[in-house]
Amino acid sequence: MHELRIDEQRFRRDFDELAEIGSTGDGGVHRPSLSPSHLEARRWFRERIERDGLEFRTDGAANHSAVLGAARPDAPTLLLGSHLDSVFHGGRFDGALGVVAAYEALRTVRDAGLELPVHLEVIDFTDEEGTLVGLLGSLAVAGAITPEELASPRGGRAALEQGMRRAGMTEDGVVAAARAPESLAGFLELHIEQGPRLVDGGIDIGIVSSIVGMASIDLIFVGREDHAGTTPMDARRDAGLAAATFMTEVTKRVRREFTDCVVNFGRIELKPGAYNIVPGRAELAVEFRAPSAERMSELETSLLESARAIATGQGARLKTRALGAIAASACADVCRAAFAEACGTLDLSNTELLSGAGHDTMALARVCPAGMIFIPSTGGSHSPREHAEWEACVNGANVLLHAALGMAQRPRG
Amino acid sequence: MHELRIDEQRFRRDFDELAEIGSTGDGGVHRPSLSPSHLEARRWFRERIERDGLEFRTDGAANHSAVLGAARPDAPTLLLGSHLDSVFHGGRFDGALGVVAAYEALRTVRDAGLELPVHLEVIDFTDEEGTLVGLLGSLAVAGAITPEELASPRGGRAALEQGMRRAGMTEDGVVAAARAPESLAGFLELHIEQGPRLVDGGIDIGIVSSIVGMASIDLIFVGREDHAGTTPMDARRDAGLAAATFMTEVTKRVRREFTDCVVNFGRIELKPGAYNIVPGRAELAVEFRAPSAERMSELETSLLESARAIATGQGARLKTRALGAIAASACADVCRAAFAEACGTLDLSNTELLSGAGHDTMALARVCPAGMIFIPSTGGSHSPREHAEWEACVNGANVLLHAALGMAQRPRG
Repeated sequence: MHELRIDEQRFRRDFDELAEIGSTGDGGVHRPSLSPSHLEARRWFRERIERDGLEFRTDGAANHSAVLGAARPDAPTLLLGSHLDSVFHGGRFDGALGVVAAYEALRTVRDAGLELPVHLEVIDFTDEEGTLVGLLGSLAVAGAITPEELASPRGGRAALEQGMRRAGMTEDGVVAAARAPESLAGFLELHIEQGPRLVDGGIDIGIVSSIVGMASIDLIFVGREDHAGTTPMDARRDAGLAAATFMTEVTKRVRREFTDCVVNFGRIELKPGAYNIVPGRAELAVEFRAPSAERMSELETSLLESARAIATGQGARLKTRALGAIAASACADVCRAAFAEACGTLDLSNTELLSGAGHDTMALARVCPAGMIFIPSTGGSHSPREHAEWEACVNGANVLLHAALGMAQRPRG
Repeated sequence: MHELRIDEQRFRRDFDELAEIGSTGDGGVHRPSLSPSHLEARRWFRERIERDGLEFRTDGAANHSAVLGAARPDAPTLLLGSHLDSVFHGGRFDGALGVVAAYEALRTVRDAGLELPVHLEVIDFTDEEGTLVGLLGSLAVAGAITPEELASPRGGRAALEQGMRRAGMTEDGVVAAARAPESLAGFLELHIEQGPRLVDGGIDIGIVSSIVGMASIDLIFVGREDHAGTTPMDARRDAGLAAATFMTEVTKRVRREFTDCVVNFGRIELKPGAYNIVPGRAELAVEFRAPSAERMSELETSLLESARAIATGQGARLKTRALGAIAASACADVCRAAFAEACGTLDLSNTELLSGAGHDTMALARVCPAGMIFIPSTGGSHSPREHAEWEACVNGANVLLHAALGMAQRPRG
C-alpha cells in the first residue's frame, strides 16, 4: 500500500478541463458561488463522477459528492474535499485543486481495489468564498448554519435567494444537510498556501496546525470639520490624521509585539470628503487575525487601547462597530499525524504552519477530526496570478491519498 | 470727517433682514450661487438700493452694485464689497457682512453729504464660494475669467448653465464685465476671520498682508493587492499604509519646517476596499497653502519628495494628478496703510495677518490696489456656527468707512 500513487496524467487532465470553466483567459477563473459558471463547474464534476461509474450524491446545501462505499453500511465516513467556487476573477487553484486531488485519491483507492473500513467521500462544498454566505456548505454539514446567517448574509439577501433558486436549494434543505458527528471519521483538505512560506523555505508540504481566528471592526474617529485654510495645523481635531496615525502605530506594534498575528486596514472614508475641509469623521475598516482565542483577545485589547489613546491625542472621540468574528480552530492531532506519516512514506519535507485564511476545514473541525495541508504556491491569493508547480500538486495529492489511508485505519476518538 | 460713524441700528436691521433669506433655522443660511435663495438675497439688495434712492447697476457677470457718483464723470471708481452667496448650509456672516458693511459705509458718506473725488461703488460679486466657478464675478471684473474656466467649471458645466440661465447671464456678458484697470481706484473688503487668531489675541482688526496661494493634488500610491490573512505583515506592499505614513510624516514636517503653511488631506480611497484585502491602491486628496510663490514651490517640492521616499519604503510607486493652483496675492501697501490709519482714527487695536482662505480681493489685486480686513469671529468657517460679536461688526464697518475715505483722497499709483 506504501507504493500506491495517484495517476498524474488523469489528475492533470481533470484539473485542466475544470480550469477552462469560467476561464478569464489569463490563467484565472471567475466562478462566484452559484453563478452560471460555478453551476457549470459543478455539473462537470457530477458528470465526471458518473462517467467514472462512481456514486454521486448531493444534499440540501447543494454539496456534491463522489462516494466509495465501505462494506459495512454503518461505517463512518471519511470526507476529503474543498470547493469549486472562486472569488470574482480569482485563481484556478484555490479550492478546485483540493476537489480534483481528493477525487483523484478516491479513484486511486477504487482502482487499487482497496477495501477501507470507512466510506470514502469526496465533497465539493457550496459557497466557500463568501460571495453569498461563506463556508455555507461546510457549516451546513457541521450543523452550524443559523437562520440569522441566512437572513442577513454577507453578500446580501437578494443574491443568496437568487443563487439558491438557481441551484434548487431551500433554507430547510440547508439545515437538513447537517450530518450526525458520530457518522464522520474525519475531514482532510488540500489547498495551495496562498502565501510565501513554503516556497521561500523550499519545503514540499505545510501541515496546518491551526487556522487563525479573525474579526472585523469599524473604528470611527470623530473630530471636528474645519476650513483647511483658516485653521492652523495645531488647532485642528483632524479625524483623518487620527486614523492615519492609528494605522502606522498599530502596524509597528503588530510587527513588534504580535508577530504571530496580522492586521489589515482595507478601507477608510473621510467626511465630508472635500479638498478644503479638515475631515471631521474618519471610518476605518480593520480586520485582524490571531492563532488562538487568547491572542485574538490580547490583540483586540491592544488595538482598542491604541485607538483610544490616538483619538484623545488628536482631540477626537472613538466609536467602534464590531462586525463579527470567527474563532481560531486547531487542526486535529490525528490528522496532523496522518499527514506527517504520509510525508514520511513519500519522503517529502514538511513543516507545521498556521493558516492565515479561513477554509472549509474550520467548519468541519466543529464536529470531527479535521486537518489540512498546504502545497507551495506563488502569486498570492484570490488572483489569476496564483500558481502552483504541477509537481507540488502531485506531491500534495499523494500526501492526501496516504493520509486518507492512514486516517481510514484509525478508530475515531 | 474723523468723527463720522456708520448707523449701527440701520446696519443691524439690514444684516438681520438679509440673514432671514435662505435661513436654515440654526443661525446659518443656504444660498448656493444663483440658487433661488441666492437670487432672492440679490433681489433684496437691489430693492434696498432702490428704496434708499441710490443708483443700482448690474453687469454681464450679474454683479450687483450701488453707486454714489462723483462730480466728475471720468473720476476713477473705488470699489467696496464682498458676496451674498454661501456654501451649502453655511454661515450668515461669510460674504454677506462684507456687502452690508460696505453698503452702510456708502450710505453714511451719502447722508453726510461728502463729495468724494471718486465714484464710490458697493459691489456684490457673483459666485465667490465656488459652487459654480469660484470668484466668478470678481475675476470677470478683473478681466481674468477664461473661456476654459467656463467650459469645465468646478461645479460642472450643467450647473453653471442652469445658474446662468436663471440669472439671465451669457458667456459674452461675463467676458464683457471686465473693467479698464485705470478706471479703478482700488478695492476694499471686510470679512470675518474664520479662524481663531484675532479672538485668541483679543485684537479688534486684522489687516490682511497677503492671501495664501493654494494648490490641490491627488497622490496615488500603487502597491500590490494581497490576501490579508496569508500575506505576512512585512511581505506586503500596502498602498494604504504608504498613504497613512505620508499623512503623519508630512503633518510633522509642515508643523516643524513650514509653520507659515498648511496642508490638508480631505479624502482617501483605498482599493479594492475590502476588509480582507491589503489595499493595492490608495488615492489621497492633498491641498496645501503658502503665503508666497516661493513657499508654495518649496512646500510642493517637499511634499513630493516625502511621497516618493515613503512610497519606495513601502514597495509602492507614486503617481500624481495636479488639479490646479491659485497664486498667492499680496494686498496693496496703500490699502494696508489706509486700514491702519483708520484703526488709529478709531482707536482700534490691529495686527497684520495672512488670509488662509481665498477671497474676491485676490481677483481684484490683479488690476488695482486691493486690500481687506478681518474682524474677530468664532465657530470656524463655512458653518452655521460661525459667529461675530455685533460690536466687532460695527468696528469693522467703521474701519471700512474710514479706509475708503482715506483711499478716496489718495491718487492711484
